[in-house]
Amino acid sequence: MRGLKTALGAEAAEADAGDTITVIGNTGDDITLAGLRVCPDLDTVMYTLGGGINEAQGWGRARESFTVREELVSYGVLPDWFGLGDRDIATHIVRAQMMAAGYPLSAVTEALCDRWQPGVRLLPMTDDRVETHVVVDDDAGRRAIHFQEWWVRHRAALPAQEFVEVGAESAKPAPGVLEAIAAADFVLLPPSNPVVSIGTILAVPGIREAMAQTTVVGVSPIISGAPVRGMADACLSAIGVETSAAAVAAHYGPELLDGWLVDVADSDVQVEGIEVRSLPLYMHDPESTSAIAAAAIELAQELRD
Amino acid sequence: MRGLKTALGAEAAEADAGDTITVIGNTGDDITLAGLRVCPDLDTVMYTLGGGINEAQGWGRARESFTVREELVSYGVLPDWFGLGDRDIATHIVRAQMMAAGYPLSAVTEALCDRWQPGVRLLPMTDDRVETHVVVDDDAGRRAIHFQEWWVRHRAALPAQEFVEVGAESAKPAPGVLEAIAAADFVLLPPSNPVVSIGTILAVPGIREAMAQTTVVGVSPIISGAPVRGMADACLSAIGVETSAAAVAAHYGPELLDGWLVDVADSDVQVEGIEVRSLPLYMHDPESTSAIAAAAIELAQELRD
Repeated sequence: MRGLKTALGAEAAEADAGDTITVIGNTGDDITLAGLRVCPDLDTVMYTLGGGINEAQGWGRARESFTVREELVSYGVLPDWFGLGDRDIATHIVRAQMMAAGYPLSAVTEALCDRWQPGVRLLPMTDDRVETHVVVDDDAGRRAIHFQEWWVRHRAALPAQEFVEVGAESAKPAPGVLEAIAAADFVLLPPSNPVVSIGTILAVPGIREAMAQTTVVGVSPIISGAPVRGMADACLSAIGVETSAAAVAAHYGPELLDGWLVDVADSDVQVEGIEVRSLPLYMHDPESTSAIAAAAIELAQELRD
Repeated sequence: MRGLKTALGAEAAEADAGDTITVIGNTGDDITLAGLRVCPDLDTVMYTLGGGINEAQGWGRARESFTVREELVSYGVLPDWFGLGDRDIATHIVRAQMMAAGYPLSAVTEALCDRWQPGVRLLPMTDDRVETHVVVDDDAGRRAIHFQEWWVRHRAALPAQEFVEVGAESAKPAPGVLEAIAAADFVLLPPSNPVVSIGTILAVPGIREAMAQTTVVGVSPIISGAPVRGMADACLSAIGVETSAAAVAAHYGPELLDGWLVDVADSDVQVEGIEVRSLPLYMHDPESTSAIAAAAIELAQELRD
């Protein structure tokens, strides 16, 4: 998911070099490990647009090593299923230090981006603590585990009964989030996970309402009934949404979503109250990604006129 | 200094395998860098006796890399003169996390030693914050800098006007320190820096007084008027003590020191009120180090009888 989402951001940034692009990142995946504050989604955007991403993997730093992780596991303070690289850990050290000093996550993100210069304004959805927990029920009993344990350790194979966005109902959008949405020509929903990425952002009170006031175009994360990448189907089935381009659009709903880009394989998709366009949605290379971004911009402009 | 001090500790541990050995470590060199808590002296003892030391260097971990440091310098949060290795950083991450959770340094040290099993009981001199600052006076003016900046960055080449043990006068010995001294058959002063290592420990109120009540044998860090290793001469001259085996013993004084081992090159040394013995003091290999430890034990036993 992350690779697609952020690649799309990059291409959009290139297409509209004159405009300011704000990326609002999900922080529900964030986790504190060995005292380090890890923000996978924000960092993936930052590294990708800043030129530090491991491109093959779609997350983490390029030219990465795992020495600190090995030592932390030896000390017994880090679970062995979480792949924290040495270069990546430096980011979490800086973040943990700034947060310990009282800086909110939005200020920390801005400081980190000073180095990476991603070319967009990167904002966390909130400065408050929101954590996606997953209710599972197996031989060990019914319990809620952190999203990362479910996603990384269990590779989403443990059936999810429910997703709980702990802290979301009292969270406030980070400074600048509502203002950026209100001022935007349009909002682009990337083909990220509709439940635990975009759904989590929409769970912060005020964000969905602000987006409903502007033009929103989404790119389907589902092609021919299967997620393009990642394990979105495991999340959709948990909330009773079919894994299809049409069902995801209907889940967002016409109050939120104005336009929807689907793959040519799904060209027969129709969703009441949402303008659907089809084009090749696989991002094989920068050119195909760029074409998707351009189509999203074109559709948004049409819908605004 | 560190290599000698800890090697001697290791040999003493071996010589008296049946006994409990407590090592009291200097914490005046400790420094917080990028939010990580670095305790060079405690870690050198722990790594050396636990088998993780870089033997050639005498500090830091074996098989070390410096990826995190490179990244922290790129973020602008770490001075480029401090050599923090990746393996070493894991120790500082664990320590910072435990200290942030409210554990005192003595408890943190015990937890870290759970992994390293140094074979001795390792105690910080104090759980309170004591920091060695160095008053210097150069083109940039008279000012106090952290010991590490003076020692590592300036390699002790900037003339020291004074050493200030910030926080020492109100510090309390860590739990177990006074009890270990009171219960000890004897106390061994290793050939560490008499000013900024042993001197700092002695600056914690109560420790010198407790040691004065028991048998104390020291190993001279000076041979033929030169430090065996490190830059002790730069420290001694700042406090007006000659760089000689005799002057260092007189500086400790007969109230504290009962026996003093000097090199054969200094066999003519005599100090009022202190029993001096000479033997080869260069630690070429485990055998020579072991012989020094054995001589210290023998002298202490003689002085006790």
